[in-house]
Amino acid sequence: MTIIKISDKIRLASKQGPDHRTIVKVGPHNIGGEHVVVIAGPCSVESRDQIMGTARIVKEAGCHMLRGGAFKPRTLPYSFQGLGEEGLEMLAEARRETGLPVVTEVLAPGDVELVESYADVLQIGARNMQNYPLLRRVGAAEKPVFLKRGMAATIEEWLGCAEYILNEGNRDVILCERGLRGFSKVTRNTLDVSAVPVIRQSSHLPVVIDPSHGTGVRSLVAPMAYAGVAAGADGVMLEVHPRPEEALSDGAQSLRPPELMELMNQIRKVANAVGRSV
Amino acid sequence: MTIIKISDKIRLASKQGPDHRTIVKVGPHNIGGEHVVVIAGPCSVESRDQIMGTARIVKEAGCHMLRGGAFKPRTLPYSFQGLGEEGLEMLAEARRETGLPVVTEVLAPGDVELVESYADVLQIGARNMQNYPLLRRVGAAEKPVFLKRGMAATIEEWLGCAEYILNEGNRDVILCERGLRGFSKVTRNTLDVSAVPVIRQSSHLPVVIDPSHGTGVRSLVAPMAYAGVAAGADGVMLEVHPRPEEALSDGAQSLRPPELMELMNQIRKVANAVGRSV
Amino acid sequence: MTIIKISDKIRLASKQGPDHRTIVKVGPHNIGGEHVVVIAGPCSVESRDQIMGTARIVKEAGCHMLRGGAFKPRTLPYSFQGLGEEGLEMLAEARRETGLPVVTEVLAPGDVELVESYADVLQIGARNMQNYPLLRRVGAAEKPVFLKRGMAATIEEWLGCAEYILNEGNRDVILCERGLRGFSKVTRNTLDVSAVPVIRQSSHLPVVIDPSHGTGVRSLVAPMAYAGVAAGADGVMLEVHPRPEEALSDGAQSLRPPELMELMNQIRKVANAVGRSV
Amino acid sequence: MTIIKISDKIRLASKQGPDHRTIVKVGPHNIGGEHVVVIAGPCSVESRDQIMGTARIVKEAGCHMLRGGAFKPRTLPYSFQGLGEEGLEMLAEARRETGLPVVTEVLAPGDVELVESYADVLQIGARNMQNYPLLRRVGAAEKPVFLKRGMAATIEEWLGCAEYILNEGNRDVILCERGLRGFSKVTRNTLDVSAVPVIRQSSHLPVVIDPSHGTGVRSLVAPMAYAGVAAGADGVMLEVHPRPEEALSDGAQSLRPPELMELMNQIRKVANAVGRSV
Repeated sequence: MTIIKISDKIRLASKQGPDHRTIVKVGPHNIGGEHVVVIAGPCSVESRDQIMGTARIVKEAGCHMLRGGAFKPRTLPYSFQGLGEEGLEMLAEARRETGLPVVTEVLAPGDVELVESYADVLQIGARNMQNYPLLRRVGAAEKPVFLKRGMAATIEEWLGCAEYILNEGNRDVILCERGLRGFSKVTRNTLDVSAVPVIRQSSHLPVVIDPSHGTGVRSLVAPMAYAGVAAGADGVMLEVHPRPEEALSDGAQSLRPPELMELMNQIRKVANAVGRSV
Repeated sequence: MTIIKISDKIRLASKQGPDHRTIVKVGPHNIGGEHVVVIAGPCSVESRDQIMGTARIVKEAGCHMLRGGAFKPRTLPYSFQGLGEEGLEMLAEARRETGLPVVTEVLAPGDVELVESYADVLQIGARNMQNYPLLRRVGAAEKPVFLKRGMAATIEEWLGCAEYILNEGNRDVILCERGLRGFSKVTRNTLDVSAVPVIRQSSHLPVVIDPSHGTGVRSLVAPMAYAGVAAGADGVMLEVHPRPEEALSDGAQSLRPPELMELMNQIRKVANAVGRSV
Repeated sequence: MTIIKISDKIRLASKQGPDHRTIVKVGPHNIGGEHVVVIAGPCSVESRDQIMGTARIVKEAGCHMLRGGAFKPRTLPYSFQGLGEEGLEMLAEARRETGLPVVTEVLAPGDVELVESYADVLQIGARNMQNYPLLRRVGAAEKPVFLKRGMAATIEEWLGCAEYILNEGNRDVILCERGLRGFSKVTRNTLDVSAVPVIRQSSHLPVVIDPSHGTGVRSLVAPMAYAGVAAGADGVMLEVHPRPEEALSDGAQSLRPPELMELMNQIRKVANAVGRSV
Repeated sequence: MTIIKISDKIRLASKQGPDHRTIVKVGPHNIGGEHVVVIAGPCSVESRDQIMGTARIVKEAGCHMLRGGAFKPRTLPYSFQGLGEEGLEMLAEARRETGLPVVTEVLAPGDVELVESYADVLQIGARNMQNYPLLRRVGAAEKPVFLKRGMAATIEEWLGCAEYILNEGNRDVILCERGLRGFSKVTRNTLDVSAVPVIRQSSHLPVVIDPSHGTGVRSLVAPMAYAGVAAGADGVMLEVHPRPEEALSDGAQSLRPPELMELMNQIRKVANAVGRSV
């Protein structure tokens, strides 16, 4: 594989040779290897019923991990801010029942210990990509970190943030492209699919694509998930909700359960076409 | 298929029902149907040897149409501006030998008659997307039009340009996404792969993706071509050159012949995975 | 003045020394010297009454030149496309009565001779910035050219377009910044005021700012006009309409007559503050 | 003054009437009133000599407040990260000698108490604009907050962040436009001068412009500072360094002392031209 050199200053996150790849283990799953991992769940944990029901759907559809936010970064202080520790407990319960490892966001250095005690993977959201004290803190955590790209971050800036985590000793960093701010009036963001092969050719870290935030439009999620996998993504993160019209956040981009099933069937074929499996 | 409504004012280019699709016939090929069409060739026609040699490679690789510029829109007046009618004649000769239909750009209303007499498809480049007198003129031509999206055009503006062509009576319009201007320091543009499903869901016109201009980086062309097909593209446009390091334009993004062969092998699998063929 | 080097390839448009400035003469006015020139008028020439009335207001307010479109580049073929030659005649009549030189857009090489026979300055709109056959044609015209920056054009690309005109022998090129495509939900475009000092430091050509298209919001036009002049602009282009709510295009950004008067009073003070006059 | 309505959900930061303005008091200075406040200093506090020397220059030039970073958010963990508390002590010493109030950045909720004990104004940098735990924490602080706009933040998102601070009870929020991520190859960012009148017309909070980060080019700082004031800014933030070529960060955009003097002379005239004073 071709190697793209981003910067000499990216020491720990740079690819050192054609086959240099980091595989991040999360429960029984390897991210960054031959398998393409699918992470699905609601935007926010809203209630016990909602997260348990969604987790069962996610499991039944054949996805590998569960996502769900307990601490939510919202544009306004008056919006639903997540259930906090109660939400984390519900996620842990969903894991106990389904066996799905849990990815959930942490917003502040002071919350890392708490979130880490429940989660399998610590998510750093796009708004916090350059929150360096938070990056250092998760760099000292025992759990893998899922680092979303900022809305206007260059590849160098993004890898620089991975570098902060790696430099503290945590080698398990998963990168996630979730869309850039653009001028589109149709999509919420502009999903930069090219970030996938750029990362594959410049870094050894696994890279996941999030077509739910990347498009903001339910009917575009599946084609963009296929695009991401065809481009070489090591995983896909999806929002799904039993009843999207009742979701407290991101309803318009959340898949309905049958749509998730259909997507899982199709994405296997796309993964196989590029020499991967789901 | 879901229908996305862009604007009531897009009358002729809008999708009217889930199965509403226009198939544009170019020689023996149908664009917009089950097949995914691959158009390949050099950025510019540089010499008889170069275009004939490239055409043979393109044919041998199993591509369906030949691209090559005889009239080149260049950032500076001092750059190579294309061979003009001489280049068109070379393209016609390449077609005679290989049977490949020819796509080539036209820059001015006054050149349409000339270009049309040689070409199978008239390309309108990104810089001319909103050159309305040119759009009207190709709208009155007998040949299909290949309409590239402007570097900062909204979907509505792009379909508005298709509308100008359709409104003059030419129903054969093929849309082509070729990358948006972005802030990347790695890629030349930001290929908006999501434009593919957005067009598929909002318009009946076929949509092609151009990962060569979309990325500007040779090693990114193949993964982004696969991404485009996985997302639903009806075709792919590629730049290929027998010796990219000697190309008069766009060498850094031109595939080498063996890379084109490899891409054609892989893209078939991706097309099959999403229910299409190449 | 500091010199910014954009590219060695920009030969004719580049600044050669700290005091290297081109002054473009239009009627009694010098653009690029000590005076700041104000060009105002409606987006489109809509009727004899409208353009004559507006021209009188523009004159009375103390502006120097009249703008107005007779050939309009519109997003859709069904929108008002301008009055064509009839509109040019009305503009010429307005000039005869008020003495104001006329700036108006030309869309196609084939129209340059006609437009030139009526206009004092030939405008190339943002959508046509890279319409190279048109640039070459106005490069051979006898009248100054007003070259608007494309919505996503780099400074190098913009100066490259000026280079096409200069290279044909027409030395009278005026550059105009009119806003970049951005993600704002408040303004229509993102006016790049920094383009003014960048052009002043990299080119000898005069540079004008268009806060009407640059913002699309009437209440933002005056503050952004002042900003442009404070940053060093050699002129300001404004849209004004006797009754904006009845305008056939761009009503929301058109100043009302009293607002134009107020702007002219204020802008004099700003110009004086930076050593210029209006 | 016209009122622009951004969103019903912006409750505390929205302008309620034409004359609704918040004046933030910092030492002897009022920000948001008739005066235009100039805040200057180095990017980073590098040494006692450097900050004391710069503070004297800032004072002598007639600026009103001193800026300087002790906690620096850097793209890479290997870059100079600031002197921390030692830097805060130096800033406090500079204030004692010059009387200039100090603006300095805070990066983490856990550092607010420390920074607040030294600083007069707490800066939230662009990368932390949507660091909501940090916003809540400074919302509970006793000192005014200087909230920089994120590199790709909409006006609504920016005011939403102000809303987080206001909602915790801290009414003293100063907004600062510092440039958007853009595609320019000349400037580091694209300074959105129009954000100044948009904020003036939509919010009662004072708004400051930062042409140093906004352009990244020394020779563009002064014209863009004038542009900001002409557009209605309540203040200007500038980077100055006694020897920019030796600066540990942002040297290319730091003014030299004589340039700061010259800027202060000119900016007074521009402020006067729009009915303000410096």
